[in-house]
Amino acid sequence: MIQRLCIIGTGLIGGSLARDLKRLGAVGEVVGSSRKVANLERALALGVIDDFDPDPAAAARKADMIVIAVPLGAIASVFERLCAGGGIDERAVITDVGSAKACVMEAAASTLSPDQSARFVPAHPIAGTEHSGVESSIEGLFERRRVILTPMERTSCEAQSRVRWMWERVGAEVIEMDLHRHDEVLALTSHLPHLLAYTLVDALGRHPDHAELFRYCAGGFYDFTRIASSDPQMWHDICLANKDAVVDALNLFRGDLDGLIDAVRQGRGETIRSVFARAKSIRDRHAESVSGQAPPSHPSQDASPSFEYASDRNAS
Amino acid sequence: MIQRLCIIGTGLIGGSLARDLKRLGAVGEVVGSSRKVANLERALALGVIDDFDPDPAAAARKADMIVIAVPLGAIASVFERLCAGGGIDERAVITDVGSAKACVMEAAASTLSPDQSARFVPAHPIAGTEHSGVESSIEGLFERRRVILTPMERTSCEAQSRVRWMWERVGAEVIEMDLHRHDEVLALTSHLPHLLAYTLVDALGRHPDHAELFRYCAGGFYDFTRIASSDPQMWHDICLANKDAVVDALNLFRGDLDGLIDAVRQGRGETIRSVFARAKSIRDRHAESVSGQAPPSHPSQDASPSFEYASDRNAS
Repeated sequence: MIQRLCIIGTGLIGGSLARDLKRLGAVGEVVGSSRKVANLERALALGVIDDFDPDPAAAARKADMIVIAVPLGAIASVFERLCAGGGIDERAVITDVGSAKACVMEAAASTLSPDQSARFVPAHPIAGTEHSGVESSIEGLFERRRVILTPMERTSCEAQSRVRWMWERVGAEVIEMDLHRHDEVLALTSHLPHLLAYTLVDALGRHPDHAELFRYCAGGFYDFTRIASSDPQMWHDICLANKDAVVDALNLFRGDLDGLIDAVRQGRGETIRSVFARAKSIRDRHAESVSGQAPPSHPSQDASPSFEYASDRNAS
Repeated sequence: MIQRLCIIGTGLIGGSLARDLKRLGAVGEVVGSSRKVANLERALALGVIDDFDPDPAAAARKADMIVIAVPLGAIASVFERLCAGGGIDERAVITDVGSAKACVMEAAASTLSPDQSARFVPAHPIAGTEHSGVESSIEGLFERRRVILTPMERTSCEAQSRVRWMWERVGAEVIEMDLHRHDEVLALTSHLPHLLAYTLVDALGRHPDHAELFRYCAGGFYDFTRIASSDPQMWHDICLANKDAVVDALNLFRGDLDGLIDAVRQGRGETIRSVFARAKSIRDRHAESVSGQAPPSHPSQDASPSFEYASDRNAS
C-alpha cells in the first residue's frame, strides 16, 4: 500500500497509473505536479489526483512514492527541483517512466545524494497510446504489459521491490534489464518504427501532390503510421536522449533498405520474395504470441474501428 | 444485374466480391477458376461460388462479367489462356483488381483483340486485409472503399459503366485515374509502406538478438508491421510490376531518412521536432477524414483487439 503517491507529470502514463492504483485501493492519497496548472486542474476534476502543487518539491513532500512521468527532456530539472526544494522524504522511493534510461541515470547520478540514489528505481512501462494528456488516461493501461526496471548498482532491494509491487498491482509483468541493453533494444523495437512512421508521413505531406496522395491512403497506411500521431516533443526528447542507439538502429534499417532498393531496381525477384516471406513468417509467429495483450479501448478515440484501440506506442 | 460472373482467382478480393454480389442479389451464377483445385473446392463449400473450372477459358465461357483477381504475375498468362481457349463471350465485360496498372495494360494490349480491349476495364479496389485466401473473404469489404478505374483509350463507355455499377453495388466509391498516375500514387501510399514494414521486420528478425528483441515489441510495433503479414508472392509481383514507381518512392523516402539520421546524429533538435510535429499534424488531419471507413471485422482473426480489424492492405 502506498500512503501518499506523488505523480510529477500528470499525463497519459502518470494519470493512468494513478487511476488504477486508486481504483484498486492501493494508494491513500495522490498529489500531482505539472508545469501547467491547467493540466493539474483537469486531473483533479477527473478524480485522477486528490491534490496538486505546481512545484514538484512541494507536491512530493511527505510522499512515500514519487513517480516522475515527465518527458525525458524535463527529467533533469525535476530531479534538481526535488533536491533543491527538499521534496524527497527520507522514506520516499523515487521512480520514473522514461523511454530511455542512460540519460535518466546520468541525471539522477548528478543530482541525488547517495542515500536518495539507493531509493531511485529507473523504470519503463512499455505501454501507452498515440494520445497524450490526462484526458487520455485510462484504467487497465498496464494490464499484461511489460515494465522494465533498470536498477543502478546502488539501488536498494527494498526500493526495487516496492516499485515492482506497484506495477504488478496494476497488472504489469515486471522485468529487470541492464540500462544500456534497454536503450539498444528499445531503439530497435520502438524508437526506430516511430521515426520511420514520422518520416513517411512527413515525406508524403511535403510532396507537391500531397492532397491527392492522402485521398488514396487507406487503412493499411493509417495503421502503419498511427504512431506518427504520437507527441512530437516526447519523441524529440527520446531521439536526443537515446541518440547513439537511435542512430545505430536507423543505420541498420537503412542498410537493409538500400539492399531492397537495389533488389527491386535490378528485378531480383528471389531476393525480394525471400525478404517478404521471412518477414511475414517472423511477424505472424510473434504477433500470435502477443495476442490478447491489447489494452482496453480508449474512451475519446473516434468511431472508426481502425482507430478504436489504444495500444502501446507513446511510452514504448 | 450480372447473369453469369466468372471470378478467376477466388482469393480474398475475388471471394469477397462474389459474396457481396450474391448477398445483394446482383448476380445470377458465380463460376470460379483457380490454378489450385483445393481453393475452388473451399470456395464452393463456403458458398462463395456455385461452380468452378480450373481452366479460365472454360470457366469464363458464357459469362457476361469476367473478373481477373489473380496476383499480378499471373495476369498475362490468364489473358493468354482466356484468348487461346475462346473463353471471352462477345458480350463479356472483362476487368481486373491488380494493384499496379501499367503492367496489366501491357498484358491486355498484347493479348486481347481490339473488340475485347474495348470491353476491358482495368480496376483497382483499394481494399483488403493482411490475410489472403477465400477463407479470409468477407462481406462488406468494399463498403466506403475506393475503386480506381484506369480506362484505356479504347475502353468503351458501356463496359466502364457496367464495372462501375458492380463496384458501386457493393458499396464502393468509384474513381477514374490515369494509369501511370495510379501507379505513382499507389507506389507512395501503399507499396512504399508495405516495403518499409517488411524491411523492418526482416531487419529485426535477422538481428543476432532477435528472440530478445521480439519479446519487447509492443502494440505500436505490431500495428506498424501488420502489413508485413501480407502475402509475400503478391507483394513480390507488385514490386516487379511497378518497379520504376516503387524505386522512385523508396528513394524519396530514403532521402528523407538520411536527413533525419543526420539531424539525430548532430542533435539538431529543431529539425527533429519540426519533422515530427508536421507528420503528427498531417496524420491527425487525414486520419480524421477516413474515420468510419474501416471494413467489418474478420471472422478468423485472433482475439486481440489490436488484430481484430480487417483493413485495406493487400490489395491497396
